Amino acid sequence: MEVVRVLHMNGGVGEASYANNSLVQKKVISMTKPITEAAITELILCSNNSSMGKTLCMAELGCSSGPNTLFVAMEFVKIVSQLWRKHGHDQLPEFQIHLNDLPGNDFNSIFKSLAPSFQKQLLQEMGAVGGLIAPPYPYCFLSGVPGSFYGRLFAAKSLHFVHSSYSLMWLSKVPERVETMNKTNIYIASTSPASVINAYYEQFQRDFSTFLRCRSEEVVGGGKMVLTLLGRKSESASTKECCYIWELLALSLKEMVSQGLIEAKKLDSFNIPQYTPSISEVKIEVEKEGSFTIDRHEVSEIAWAACSGDSGFYSPEYSKKGGDGYNVAICMRSVAEPLLVEHFGRELVIDQLFQNYSNILSDRMSKEDTKFINVTVSMTRKQ
Amino acid sequence: MEVVRVLHMNGGVGEASYANNSLVQKKVISMTKPITEAAITELILCSNNSSMGKTLCMAELGCSSGPNTLFVAMEFVKIVSQLWRKHGHDQLPEFQIHLNDLPGNDFNSIFKSLAPSFQKQLLQEMGAVGGLIAPPYPYCFLSGVPGSFYGRLFAAKSLHFVHSSYSLMWLSKVPERVETMNKTNIYIASTSPASVINAYYEQFQRDFSTFLRCRSEEVVGGGKMVLTLLGRKSESASTKECCYIWELLALSLKEMVSQGLIEAKKLDSFNIPQYTPSISEVKIEVEKEGSFTIDRHEVSEIAWAACSGDSGFYSPEYSKKGGDGYNVAICMRSVAEPLLVEHFGRELVIDQLFQNYSNILSDRMSKEDTKFINVTVSMTRKQ
Repeated sequence: MEVVRVLHMNGGVGEASYANNSLVQKKVISMTKPITEAAITELILCSNNSSMGKTLCMAELGCSSGPNTLFVAMEFVKIVSQLWRKHGHDQLPEFQIHLNDLPGNDFNSIFKSLAPSFQKQLLQEMGAVGGLIAPPYPYCFLSGVPGSFYGRLFAAKSLHFVHSSYSLMWLSKVPERVETMNKTNIYIASTSPASVINAYYEQFQRDFSTFLRCRSEEVVGGGKMVLTLLGRKSESASTKECCYIWELLALSLKEMVSQGLIEAKKLDSFNIPQYTPSISEVKIEVEKEGSFTIDRHEVSEIAWAACSGDSGFYSPEYSKKGGDGYNVAICMRSVAEPLLVEHFGRELVIDQLFQNYSNILSDRMSKEDTKFINVTVSMTRKQ
Repeated sequence: MEVVRVLHMNGGVGEASYANNSLVQKKVISMTKPITEAAITELILCSNNSSMGKTLCMAELGCSSGPNTLFVAMEFVKIVSQLWRKHGHDQLPEFQIHLNDLPGNDFNSIFKSLAPSFQKQLLQEMGAVGGLIAPPYPYCFLSGVPGSFYGRLFAAKSLHFVHSSYSLMWLSKVPERVETMNKTNIYIASTSPASVINAYYEQFQRDFSTFLRCRSEEVVGGGKMVLTLLGRKSESASTKECCYIWELLALSLKEMVSQGLIEAKKLDSFNIPQYTPSISEVKIEVEKEGSFTIDRHEVSEIAWAACSGDSGFYSPEYSKKGGDGYNVAICMRSVAEPLLVEHFGRELVIDQLFQNYSNILSDRMSKEDTKFINVTVSMTRKQ
């Protein structure tokens, strides 16, 4: 599977769209906000003004299309503007905000609905509208940058701040050896052979070090990068805390095999291009690559049930009314549907697959303590 | 009508898409290539390297979505790379290419099909694939920038080269007075009162000077800008050479009014947000604004029949097989359909409108010499 072409969150604003099912991702960004804020504050306070120039440039990597796309960009502009005023600069810098995702991402939705309201919402949040702050107001330029972050995306030494959340656990591809050796598993599972686990880990190492090398070219000395990945606490890659969510989707797929709705060999060759690292696996790669120093790191957790809540961002009629199982299922669907459809073909009865999955999830969530683990690391580009 | 929201070329790759009906625009870009080449060459030869930095940045304003989107960007990278090598620089600069259009433009199509093949095609055209040139090869970063060019789009002093073709005749809005005073005309016509013509001209003056002021902030000293507009030779704004194409579309709309398919008052209030200036009207605004010096200007013409030819860029099944009238009609449809649908509503029988238009065009083109007039101006940002 050509991940760069296939992988993207569900576009548009419908019931199974990412825009309407990214509440857990939003909560994770909020949880990690103190780390993001600290990085932005240090960026401004510790840099000399000459290295910053008149334009401050940030990139949101894996921006998707929905309420989270511009969430951190908004914080970035607000925090920098406040610090700038506090330190008596009479002229605010200009802000360049790059929104990156793979080419299949729904950039049209971003450009038509999110981008035009960004400046307005920013002024409102900053208190400009109520007359709480006086001009000048910040100028923000938005751009969409399509492409894989496992390659160069931006001009050399052009970025001051990079943010990415729930994106870097996606690999550039399913490791080659995995395809034939992981049988009815679709991700690392308790029954996966060691060779599968190793292949996944090696792919993560290659991808993550490539990512760091590319960003080291693009981020200015003193520039900051805050990354949050879906990960794990345990040092064992086959721990239930990161694998269970996919094991249950595999169960639902197996049910469809037994009903003759999916060919068994199709399931055997399907694997998710993802790796959920531990914090130490992340740190090892940063240290090996050598261009960045780690300032902070944190491991946090969020219940699967956090997928439930007042979503329906664009389309209030899709506000979450189902049970927790349904909400987790549709959240996973908004993320994984393009991968599933590409592999199993248009004949896959996707509604039924996720109905089964929803039932399985409801059952397990009522009996077990189910959580996602988040691994966050904040770093500075060495001078 | 809110032009910024409504105006865009037809997206996708279907029969009436802009991508498959932008042959005449491509020919105009080719015709004006000597001016573009001269501007790029002067940019490189006359600038000192320090003002250029390591990244050369160009913007295509009104890039649309189709074979013309990256046409000039490709030339830019090729010409600069050749000059760079010729002058013995061992390291090529990096290229940042901004693709701008209004938010309704089909950026998804650009990102999914054009952008990924750009680097490959570039190397092929430069002779890298056949081993004709040795590495290093240029690095190109593409970004989409949604928004009106009648406002700031890019960071201060960030652009080295700006190109725009067949975009700047679009106004930011239909001038207010026009709506009630232009009756069954849809653009300036021989029967338009002087007040309508003046209102259109004043809107052009406001818009074009705003455009120049915004770009003057964004283009570095010594930076170049090449603009081609649909225009006219005559100093009279109601000359047939620029108005006739819309007068014939108005005829087709009137036919539908007489058939009861469109309300008469709906037609009375419809006007195209466009102004086709003379070269002297363009020059006056550039001189008034004062930030740019004009290096070259040129007026050229291209037959309406140039809409015919081997198009079907994306979808060969849509290669032009109709007569000249049909080809001009579908070309105009790919440009004007969103405006028409917004004003007349989804109930407008668009196929019939353009079938009528096609018949009218065929008749007139067989009897008259019908042409578009192009006004091109090349300028340098003062230091």
